[in-house]
Amino acid sequence: MRVERDFIGELEIPDNVYYGIHTARALKNFPITGEKYNENFIWAFFMIKKAAAILNYELGYLEKDIAKAIVKACDEWKNLKNYIVVEPLSGGAGTSINMNFNEVIANRATEILNGEKGEYIVNPLNHVNLHQSTNDVFPTAGKIAIIKELREVVSNVIKLQDIIQNKEKEFMKIKKIGRTQLMDAVPIMLGQEFGAWADALSRDRWRLYKVEERIRSVNIGGTAIGTGIAAPKEYVLKIVNVVREITKIGIAKAENLIDATQNWDVFSEISGLLKSLAVNLIKISNDIRLLGSGRSGYNELILPKIQAGSSIMPGKVNPVIPEYVIQLSLSVISFDNLITTATYNGNLELNHLAPLIIHYTLKSMEYLNNSLTALKGYIELIEANEKQCQKNLINSYTFITPLIELFGYEIVSEALEKNDYEVENVIKYLSEKYNKNIKELKKMINPEKMTGLGYNLK
Amino acid sequence: MRVERDFIGELEIPDNVYYGIHTARALKNFPITGEKYNENFIWAFFMIKKAAAILNYELGYLEKDIAKAIVKACDEWKNLKNYIVVEPLSGGAGTSINMNFNEVIANRATEILNGEKGEYIVNPLNHVNLHQSTNDVFPTAGKIAIIKELREVVSNVIKLQDIIQNKEKEFMKIKKIGRTQLMDAVPIMLGQEFGAWADALSRDRWRLYKVEERIRSVNIGGTAIGTGIAAPKEYVLKIVNVVREITKIGIAKAENLIDATQNWDVFSEISGLLKSLAVNLIKISNDIRLLGSGRSGYNELILPKIQAGSSIMPGKVNPVIPEYVIQLSLSVISFDNLITTATYNGNLELNHLAPLIIHYTLKSMEYLNNSLTALKGYIELIEANEKQCQKNLINSYTFITPLIELFGYEIVSEALEKNDYEVENVIKYLSEKYNKNIKELKKMINPEKMTGLGYNLK
Amino acid sequence: MRVERDFIGELEIPDNVYYGIHTARALKNFPITGEKYNENFIWAFFMIKKAAAILNYELGYLEKDIAKAIVKACDEWKNLKNYIVVEPLSGGAGTSINMNFNEVIANRATEILNGEKGEYIVNPLNHVNLHQSTNDVFPTAGKIAIIKELREVVSNVIKLQDIIQNKEKEFMKIKKIGRTQLMDAVPIMLGQEFGAWADALSRDRWRLYKVEERIRSVNIGGTAIGTGIAAPKEYVLKIVNVVREITKIGIAKAENLIDATQNWDVFSEISGLLKSLAVNLIKISNDIRLLGSGRSGYNELILPKIQAGSSIMPGKVNPVIPEYVIQLSLSVISFDNLITTATYNGNLELNHLAPLIIHYTLKSMEYLNNSLTALKGYIELIEANEKQCQKNLINSYTFITPLIELFGYEIVSEALEKNDYEVENVIKYLSEKYNKNIKELKKMINPEKMTGLGYNLK
Amino acid sequence: MRVERDFIGELEIPDNVYYGIHTARALKNFPITGEKYNENFIWAFFMIKKAAAILNYELGYLEKDIAKAIVKACDEWKNLKNYIVVEPLSGGAGTSINMNFNEVIANRATEILNGEKGEYIVNPLNHVNLHQSTNDVFPTAGKIAIIKELREVVSNVIKLQDIIQNKEKEFMKIKKIGRTQLMDAVPIMLGQEFGAWADALSRDRWRLYKVEERIRSVNIGGTAIGTGIAAPKEYVLKIVNVVREITKIGIAKAENLIDATQNWDVFSEISGLLKSLAVNLIKISNDIRLLGSGRSGYNELILPKIQAGSSIMPGKVNPVIPEYVIQLSLSVISFDNLITTATYNGNLELNHLAPLIIHYTLKSMEYLNNSLTALKGYIELIEANEKQCQKNLINSYTFITPLIELFGYEIVSEALEKNDYEVENVIKYLSEKYNKNIKELKKMINPEKMTGLGYNLK
Repeated sequence: MRVERDFIGELEIPDNVYYGIHTARALKNFPITGEKYNENFIWAFFMIKKAAAILNYELGYLEKDIAKAIVKACDEWKNLKNYIVVEPLSGGAGTSINMNFNEVIANRATEILNGEKGEYIVNPLNHVNLHQSTNDVFPTAGKIAIIKELREVVSNVIKLQDIIQNKEKEFMKIKKIGRTQLMDAVPIMLGQEFGAWADALSRDRWRLYKVEERIRSVNIGGTAIGTGIAAPKEYVLKIVNVVREITKIGIAKAENLIDATQNWDVFSEISGLLKSLAVNLIKISNDIRLLGSGRSGYNELILPKIQAGSSIMPGKVNPVIPEYVIQLSLSVISFDNLITTATYNGNLELNHLAPLIIHYTLKSMEYLNNSLTALKGYIELIEANEKQCQKNLINSYTFITPLIELFGYEIVSEALEKNDYEVENVIKYLSEKYNKNIKELKKMINPEKMTGLGYNLK
Repeated sequence: MRVERDFIGELEIPDNVYYGIHTARALKNFPITGEKYNENFIWAFFMIKKAAAILNYELGYLEKDIAKAIVKACDEWKNLKNYIVVEPLSGGAGTSINMNFNEVIANRATEILNGEKGEYIVNPLNHVNLHQSTNDVFPTAGKIAIIKELREVVSNVIKLQDIIQNKEKEFMKIKKIGRTQLMDAVPIMLGQEFGAWADALSRDRWRLYKVEERIRSVNIGGTAIGTGIAAPKEYVLKIVNVVREITKIGIAKAENLIDATQNWDVFSEISGLLKSLAVNLIKISNDIRLLGSGRSGYNELILPKIQAGSSIMPGKVNPVIPEYVIQLSLSVISFDNLITTATYNGNLELNHLAPLIIHYTLKSMEYLNNSLTALKGYIELIEANEKQCQKNLINSYTFITPLIELFGYEIVSEALEKNDYEVENVIKYLSEKYNKNIKELKKMINPEKMTGLGYNLK
Repeated sequence: MRVERDFIGELEIPDNVYYGIHTARALKNFPITGEKYNENFIWAFFMIKKAAAILNYELGYLEKDIAKAIVKACDEWKNLKNYIVVEPLSGGAGTSINMNFNEVIANRATEILNGEKGEYIVNPLNHVNLHQSTNDVFPTAGKIAIIKELREVVSNVIKLQDIIQNKEKEFMKIKKIGRTQLMDAVPIMLGQEFGAWADALSRDRWRLYKVEERIRSVNIGGTAIGTGIAAPKEYVLKIVNVVREITKIGIAKAENLIDATQNWDVFSEISGLLKSLAVNLIKISNDIRLLGSGRSGYNELILPKIQAGSSIMPGKVNPVIPEYVIQLSLSVISFDNLITTATYNGNLELNHLAPLIIHYTLKSMEYLNNSLTALKGYIELIEANEKQCQKNLINSYTFITPLIELFGYEIVSEALEKNDYEVENVIKYLSEKYNKNIKELKKMINPEKMTGLGYNLK
Repeated sequence: MRVERDFIGELEIPDNVYYGIHTARALKNFPITGEKYNENFIWAFFMIKKAAAILNYELGYLEKDIAKAIVKACDEWKNLKNYIVVEPLSGGAGTSINMNFNEVIANRATEILNGEKGEYIVNPLNHVNLHQSTNDVFPTAGKIAIIKELREVVSNVIKLQDIIQNKEKEFMKIKKIGRTQLMDAVPIMLGQEFGAWADALSRDRWRLYKVEERIRSVNIGGTAIGTGIAAPKEYVLKIVNVVREITKIGIAKAENLIDATQNWDVFSEISGLLKSLAVNLIKISNDIRLLGSGRSGYNELILPKIQAGSSIMPGKVNPVIPEYVIQLSLSVISFDNLITTATYNGNLELNHLAPLIIHYTLKSMEYLNNSLTALKGYIELIEANEKQCQKNLINSYTFITPLIELFGYEIVSEALEKNDYEVENVIKYLSEKYNKNIKELKKMINPEKMTGLGYNLK
């Protein structure tokens, strides 16, 4: 054990750990929830600290060996990340988390300079955190991590869309009944159903691609409240460039740093778009559940047998991946509500719920990446039950719809009603009552033709 | 009473009303909630019916006098709108609502052709609804109305932003304490606080302006499930142009009509952006509540006395407009959750919850327009309490922050702790202990200078 | 026009209206949303005013003729309710709404005493509002209205449960396949499915019945913040009794009036229970949608043809009532989120979002009453498609489940897999491979027996 | 590596792990989210397996040594829990999770009988899972865990309430200004404010204590869909008793097992009550934030310095624990929305989103336990700033309220308005204009007396 002190008092710290007294206080103060940090977030935080050290050295605020030691420590982030232990949902707008990074880097840098942990040749506050505030560093790290995750989401959306489009082609000739309000409607091709899902995903691609530009605007340099207090103007203006170079993420200084520090509506916006992807994933998953629903159900898709479905019913195969995707996607939608609530709860110069917002935004993207990956693998294995598609189509009656052009809506409705919805009888009835050729009537309602654009009798 | 019939049976209809049996059934089936139609939605629906009549005439599917009567009836929409009486949240994906329009138009058009209500010289289904389905007409009317409301929202955001920017200038020289986590932080100008609000609103302008292009894509012509069944191809391809000409709203045919009929993620997207505006309105309103909070509170803003605040405490003035805005904005955020839920609940070829989605999206925009208007009038009347701003600033201690550059964070923290956070004493203590000139120290922490970008000692 | 004045200034009021200057200011300040007052709320508010007048007279604070005029005016509430015009979501924690009642009553009472509107022989503040604050009157009126609505909800739940139980009996002998995860599971009786819905509703009955006792606790007498300031102690202690006698609703004085004024968690609780009813209504509605889903779907229920289902597809019948119920029930769940958010947003001695909370809680109950009524009428008309139930059951394979007792889970699974899930072949295969009598095997998996409790082979 | 097989095919399993092929498939199928199992849930699951083995042995369905080995393996749950590795949000309604337990127990029991892992002397399906289905075991384990967590929540609520009541007594004599709508209202004692929080918590105690009885009703014995198929009737009737004995949790067999299997409204109910606790915790936390808000704010509470508040502003102390509590409590409220959504998404005989519901309900309770513990420790350290309380009170004007009894509301309002809200001048003005003794007027508005119940002039 070593002893460290701050303006509140002294505390014992285990010898082997890289964090210090601020972290130790936070560990005592905030009961652990078990939530995990996103790895991109940890990386981004270390890279910001590295950037600050480099710039502070260049501007003459840090001595060379101090700066070099900080840079080296930051580059060892993969070894140090296990010492980032403060509760991700801790209070303090991220201060304890920032201090956790500051202390871990300071202690490791101290070691690099042949000091011992706790000796603080490199000081967490005056060196590692120099010209920074939690209030600019924390959201900037969050946004960089969000951009990284977002790109992965976009890439996974593209992959899923590709797989679905393959199925669209594969199933393009399979006629089936379309359903509205779960009731028989008019004919459609199975491939068209997959095509509709794919096109929904193309909106997500576009939406998520475009939102990145809004996240790029960061408040680093603004320090405590966006005025850049206690940081030299040169630093304030340049730090974003150094971070951009190091992370290769195209961030830019917000035009109004005060606004960017206190107003977090952009997180409500991102999360509002992520939920729209979740909407499409749930819609697709539920459609698969319905189309694949059992031998006594729609049974138009043959779902992949990727695991036993039941611990009691032998041979049962369940749509486990759509169910997994639905659970994660519903979570994303509820997290959106949580994130939105947290964004408007900011007061005056700061949003004190910053840790929650960053954490759940990143978690939403992790959930989406999980969902996209799982769903892609699953849809790839889906097969069509062409026989059943045909059977359900024949069993229906609504492909009689084009006849309204000939008889009007009311007459056809009445003919159905009087003939118990049996298409054969309906045709016969109409042919007799209105003196039409029965063969021609039948030809008019050929389902094969009805799935093309604008099928009508004339 | 007149008697009308459909394939289910007969029903009595009051003589004087323009609607018919489908509407009457819906009135019986759906208990009335009291929700009201958005006026733009009613207008858009009539205009679509007008467009269809014109195109159907041009393509030879409607006789001239029938088409002309329909067009004339639609142009009388302001007189007919009171007959649109079906419950806005009725089941049936909007079918009853569509039929309500069809019947009202058919009966009025019948009258125009010198017939009587119920005689249906112009038939609601075979004439007014010709080549249409609820499933393409209803969401298209919804989107046109949404675009109209959206433009009003954007216009109101601009007006609010202008007023706030006026205040930004007015209050630019008023120094005050900034607050993070509700605790004293570092100095800021009152004008800067208003400026941050204004800049948040500029993001809303941009977001809402950009989203319009996504809403423009409509599925009219797709009829039942997007294949355009029972409509001639020429009609399918041209109808959107006619609607666009009549409404002057720049809609375009969706590339994939099947997708556009069944996937409603775009409503989740719009609503996700509307909620981001709500986020900013709540943040601003709560900031006003705090800054204006009573003589025994922050008291930095003088809130307008627009009405008596209490029925028991004389002279009390409350922030009633921010409270109104918060209530409406919180509603918008919950409606977003509702709309999102409804969007992913669509199944296969249709979203059966269409009425809910359209209704609450439009209602959100009405709430936002109400909020923006009320808040603009209120902020215009806000005055600064400069004396109290100054007093609070002096009373604080955190403007000592720049001294960390001279002494380091720990020394200044300790000095505060040992001197009971009394700035005078802290300065004296530091000056004595570290042998610094007391006057120079004081000069360093002049709040006036600290609100500029990147204030530091060097 | 008459002119009225308050401490802010003068305002013109139309001659014929019963409200006064406070109401007029509110009309100017709060743009109208179109939300409507719940009728029970209006009634409750008038009754509280009546009670206060009676008690104030009895305790000697009001002269007899003044008190009598107030009482008479309150008894005319059905005529006066059209003058309650302030926006229901107005800011001010209900102050404008309270003043609207005070003014309407005062002006009517003034008339009763042969005065003219605006003359205020009976004063809105010093007579009608005597010993009251918005902060105790408003939530008390809200709770009384909530209890009234709640009782109607409970009564409607009972009615719906009864209807469902009738169907349970009617369908008790109809065997069908049960489904888990939408896939074929093991046999069940159609009546058992209805029975499960009925039993879910019995939990709602109990829940909603029990919660009433929590709502009974009201803060009337507490005036501004629960200390009862500016009201005599005798009044504070007795007013609740007088209100109880007049309304016949068994309210009781909260033990801690300060707590009851500022902490609104009980509304989060009520609304949390209302949403649980919504949960059951959605589950039932979706089950009906599935079981009734078209000729090419499950098709086990014959849905009532209560209106034409489509404006384009003739003969189509849709589950319009379940769709209506789902839309309203989803709204109730989102309103719960809204109400909950508003409850925790109270600060210190008051919840400033009181109007929102009361309004949406009552609206939730109205939506539920609408839903319950509509669903009851609908389920009454549902018929079983016994033929299809039988067909789906035979078509399934999972009624083979009991054989796991004989062969173990793995062997049966394998037998299904090897025989393409065709039950006939599976039985043959198992009989041959394991040397069992084929007839006995078939007897073991008789679906008729499997729906009784604990069916097994031994 | 050992090889295991099921009806889908073969898979390699690492030699050292206790789980088997079903678990391995799930690990491949469901990308890991990082969510952790609640420990009580794991315990409850093992105990149910133990109970089933005991009962199956007693009823003659399991041989003694097999049953004993299963029991022994279950008792080693603390060693085995690390092998429960399936994704907690996996699809399949919990089947993979159930199989994970079955396999771990089977392999450990096999070892106990001197077999090797993978040899399955004790079979996961035919022995460990005998007479069970995921669909009855999973929710029953969930409910037992929920009851355990719930008791901890109740116990923590009591502890927090106690601490707050101590503060109530400690601060009972400290007069201060009460605030409504954040504006100065009438006097209150600081202790009364704490007392209101404590009384809010007593409602939570009662609510959460009472809900336990609703959770006690479990569906174990119902197997796949509640009919108890493939389980002997004796087992179906007795299993709940054995589980109750072993767990000492007073569960009872649901009256309608079919209902209990498919309708999960009770989870919406529990979660709806948990959120009401969250509501109170947020209200209390925000009140603390306000009352403790800085030297330039309300400053009536002295917040504990439990850690440094800022990495840049020296000496800053922030309300980090209230902020932590708010973040967790907001999460609980959003999880309620998630849980509710999942409950109504069940279809027909099962809720396929069971894992999500159980997981997030338990997580909500963990978050609440964390919050309660942290908040208790924090409030214990809060001190009153009596001087500031007095100063703010004097600085206010609304303690003039009782004078409305003497002059009426309008006169006092006007007096305030004309004298710039300076109480001294207002009194003087009233005394002169209305010829009252100035001393007596002052005596009437003595704040000390105003906090008692029903203070008035007469």
